[in-house]
Amino acid sequence: MRHRDEHKLKALLEATMMEVSEHGFSVTSVARIAKAAGMSPGTVYLYYRDKEALLEATFVDVSQRIIDVAVEAFQTPSSTEDVCRDDVHQLKTAMRRVWQALIKLGRREPALFRFHDQFLHSSHMTDALKIANQQKASALLDAFEAGKRSGILKPIELVLIEIFMFRTIYSLLQGQGCQVPPISDASFDQGFDMAWDAIALRS
Amino acid sequence: MRHRDEHKLKALLEATMMEVSEHGFSVTSVARIAKAAGMSPGTVYLYYRDKEALLEATFVDVSQRIIDVAVEAFQTPSSTEDVCRDDVHQLKTAMRRVWQALIKLGRREPALFRFHDQFLHSSHMTDALKIANQQKASALLDAFEAGKRSGILKPIELVLIEIFMFRTIYSLLQGQGCQVPPISDASFDQGFDMAWDAIALRS
Repeated sequence: MRHRDEHKLKALLEATMMEVSEHGFSVTSVARIAKAAGMSPGTVYLYYRDKEALLEATFVDVSQRIIDVAVEAFQTPSSTEDVCRDDVHQLKTAMRRVWQALIKLGRREPALFRFHDQFLHSSHMTDALKIANQQKASALLDAFEAGKRSGILKPIELVLIEIFMFRTIYSLLQGQGCQVPPISDASFDQGFDMAWDAIALRS
Repeated sequence: MRHRDEHKLKALLEATMMEVSEHGFSVTSVARIAKAAGMSPGTVYLYYRDKEALLEATFVDVSQRIIDVAVEAFQTPSSTEDVCRDDVHQLKTAMRRVWQALIKLGRREPALFRFHDQFLHSSHMTDALKIANQQKASALLDAFEAGKRSGILKPIELVLIEIFMFRTIYSLLQGQGCQVPPISDASFDQGFDMAWDAIALRS
């Protein structure tokens, strides 16, 4: 087998993300992705046996990048934060950091969220991929479970937290691209408080 | 000009909605839509000058159907409702009827919401179409403005109400199709209370 190169692999996943998020799954051929990545279709098949495997690897990579940013923001209090406040305040503050970090990521690399959303609602999505992502995001998911047990969060299914706390970010970023006038920074900030009010029990 | 037939027109818009929501804009040709509608491509051009005009007419039709259901639910209290309660209760109850009516519509005709969402975030969307939809939905939008003025709703841009009150419905319906286990009826109900908590001022 010929030598596999980390840089080429990265370029290939990036090209897949860009092409699919721009043109959709069905019109995006391996030949098209290869061209965008600056390699021959034959080289692509050194890395992945078919288009399906390439799409799946791209989803795993994209998910990892999004989840890494979320988990890191969740676990890293800023130095100016008062860590002595109560549990409600701490969870809310940590979630606000996650919200802001994901908005920043989505503004810098909109294709990440577009690809992730398209894949998630396509026939390519599998239970195994979903479970793998939940494991990667376990620091966050465990905190949601703890928040529910201690009465900070509403007793709701995880999918509702996903929809109101995370898919609303994607809606805001999507709207940013096509709303006239563009969605204001103030609305991005208010969005977090709305998401929090949606998932938190009124105290 | 040959006779234009209302039934054929309806079949054409329906076929466009189904084909686009299934396969996306780029792979859906006029020939493909014509075949799905059981007519020749030549007949399609009796009704619309090109694919763009056909897509736009379909969006206008789909939007009208969704907005009609929402506005009717908003304006029609059920006979068992206590209409003597305060303004907060009345607006919340009316919005719950809208939420439930849209969920019911989306479950019966998922292609309606899929097409609407795809069109909304495509290059086909125009400001003129957006303004026309806002006029159709004016009963609802006026109530939001009044709710903000009277301190029932948060002082937020309309786009945030759309995202938290209406796009979350689409997320729930999308999730319904691919979540294992499927999203429960209880979650659909809790979804409304979450959406309300997101947009309402805490009293």
